[in-house]
Amino acid sequence: TTFKEKPDPTGLVFGTVFTDNMLTIQWSLASGWEKPYIKPLENLSLHPASSALHYAIELFEGMKAYRGVDGKIRLFRPTLNMERMARSARRTTLPTFDQNELLECIRKLVEVEQEWVPYSTSASLYIRPTLIGTEPSLGVKKPTKALLYVILSPVGAYFASGSFNPISLWADPKYVRAWKGGTGDCKLGGNYGSAIYAQQEALEFGCQQVLWLYGDDHQITEVGTMNLFLYWINEDGENELATPPLDGIILPGVTRQSILDLALNWGEFKVSERYITMSDLTSALEENRVKEMFGAGTACIVCPISKILYKGKHLHIPTMENGPELTTRFLNNLIVSVLHFWLKVFLDLPLEFS
Amino acid sequence: TTFKEKPDPTGLVFGTVFTDNMLTIQWSLASGWEKPYIKPLENLSLHPASSALHYAIELFEGMKAYRGVDGKIRLFRPTLNMERMARSARRTTLPTFDQNELLECIRKLVEVEQEWVPYSTSASLYIRPTLIGTEPSLGVKKPTKALLYVILSPVGAYFASGSFNPISLWADPKYVRAWKGGTGDCKLGGNYGSAIYAQQEALEFGCQQVLWLYGDDHQITEVGTMNLFLYWINEDGENELATPPLDGIILPGVTRQSILDLALNWGEFKVSERYITMSDLTSALEENRVKEMFGAGTACIVCPISKILYKGKHLHIPTMENGPELTTRFLNNLIVSVLHFWLKVFLDLPLEFS
Repeated sequence: TTFKEKPDPTGLVFGTVFTDNMLTIQWSLASGWEKPYIKPLENLSLHPASSALHYAIELFEGMKAYRGVDGKIRLFRPTLNMERMARSARRTTLPTFDQNELLECIRKLVEVEQEWVPYSTSASLYIRPTLIGTEPSLGVKKPTKALLYVILSPVGAYFASGSFNPISLWADPKYVRAWKGGTGDCKLGGNYGSAIYAQQEALEFGCQQVLWLYGDDHQITEVGTMNLFLYWINEDGENELATPPLDGIILPGVTRQSILDLALNWGEFKVSERYITMSDLTSALEENRVKEMFGAGTACIVCPISKILYKGKHLHIPTMENGPELTTRFLNNLIVSVLHFWLKVFLDLPLEFS
Repeated sequence: TTFKEKPDPTGLVFGTVFTDNMLTIQWSLASGWEKPYIKPLENLSLHPASSALHYAIELFEGMKAYRGVDGKIRLFRPTLNMERMARSARRTTLPTFDQNELLECIRKLVEVEQEWVPYSTSASLYIRPTLIGTEPSLGVKKPTKALLYVILSPVGAYFASGSFNPISLWADPKYVRAWKGGTGDCKLGGNYGSAIYAQQEALEFGCQQVLWLYGDDHQITEVGTMNLFLYWINEDGENELATPPLDGIILPGVTRQSILDLALNWGEFKVSERYITMSDLTSALEENRVKEMFGAGTACIVCPISKILYKGKHLHIPTMENGPELTTRFLNNLIVSVLHFWLKVFLDLPLEFS
């Protein structure tokens, strides 16, 4: 069979090019999980009443395979993605699964497609596991049919040649990403489709992403589709790396967890999962206590923040003036761990094969 | 061509049987809306990266066509559905459309399928317009491709032979359906998939539906996928029909609006869009001020409520003991208007054809 030509990893637009093959696994209440198939990437044939299309009974994951300098292909902490995927499945009443078996299927798919893992230290192969309800009826209920599939997309460096392009944020409490009692801590489709309208409005205000606020005190929660970190001198005069706690409205990001693991292991400054309000931030900016602010997620790994538009005022965040020293250090450590050698601080192992 | 056999309308499970044909209309940013097609119902062929499947960029509507005693087929206030559909499209960054043209396409589809409109005064043909993002890439962004389609499903009487089966509700603030700054006032898929988990828990507690609460004061908002009405003697001793206001977290139901229109036209009691908390309700129950409580939506029209499980206590709602007089009157008026003659109180006209 003929294969698609592998693209030049530089200049790839995220998630637009897919590899030759995909993994599919059917599930039904009657028969459970069926045999997994790796087969040519093709359109899905879905009943027009499928519950994913009407009631967003759907979830996804995002992870990456890297080609290390030693020639080995590594997936970064994929067991954390499998755990989160199982949790998302329970929350949206989709079937759960054997996490090790699914990971083995994904490993097999990446192995089949290994020539698609870019020969580049600045590019990678993005892995997108997806689980959708395919119940072909309109009752709002737990689906009796589902489809798990995995597609792969080679992605370039988020930041060309290691130089960061900081982003500007639009912070307006009128749109709320997630709320207590909702699904913000799971990776469900519904969390994303509802966010794009606010993203459009951010663009109209000349900002690149939304800074999601929550509650009357305007807590800072997430940025775009990333977790958020603030490195500052806190109210007590301590150097502190702070990120909002996992209280039900924050997505428990794998990159977020890895940054916390690294920082705690270094032991050089206070590391806190704590609430940060816009008023905490503006006070700190006035008193020159803010060092760096960045988003963290699988797509970009880390993403420095330089500006926030809030209540009609442009707040300048001095991330770039400060290096960004810590942001860069996190990026390098996370990259090193998959490209060069696995950092012992991550007690779990990467999925590694050549 | 051969057609499927029309089912006996009694005993139909909601949304499980579909007619022979469907309507499809493709959209792209480059070409806008393409020509509408009415063609045999078939599976959709969707790219596995389609944005509806990953980010729930999707919305739907629900409406019904009835066969009147005069032989005419009527759609109940479909312009209200078209308006809401356009609003949902804007909120989820899907393309808007000419509401009259879409309605004309739907009329044409129902005309083609008119033998599927049950010859019964207790059954109808459910119409499900759906609009999904078909962008074949993984960036979280406004889609450049979309598909609008409409499928039809004959549905039986929600309550057999006019006798109501009241439902029991589970009220627990730990799950929240919608929130200020979210999408609860639009008919987006994400509002539904996230609700099924709570619905499952309601079943485990022996209740049939969720009574959705909001805020620290446990405001009563919706019931299952229906709007909620309370007919009671209020705090000031007045007979009042109350339903929560459209403050952003409530779906503006067509049945809800029609019930308000009818009640205001009658002018026999106070009609209020107001907040009702669980504490308002429990006080009123203790003081014997509650007359009837019911859900309202397209699927069941009205649905009486007889019990609420709240904080471990079973609250008995005396809806059935009171007839339910008002609930029945609303049902009869709404049915009469589509089966017999159009009530002048609905200033807009039904879509009517024979």
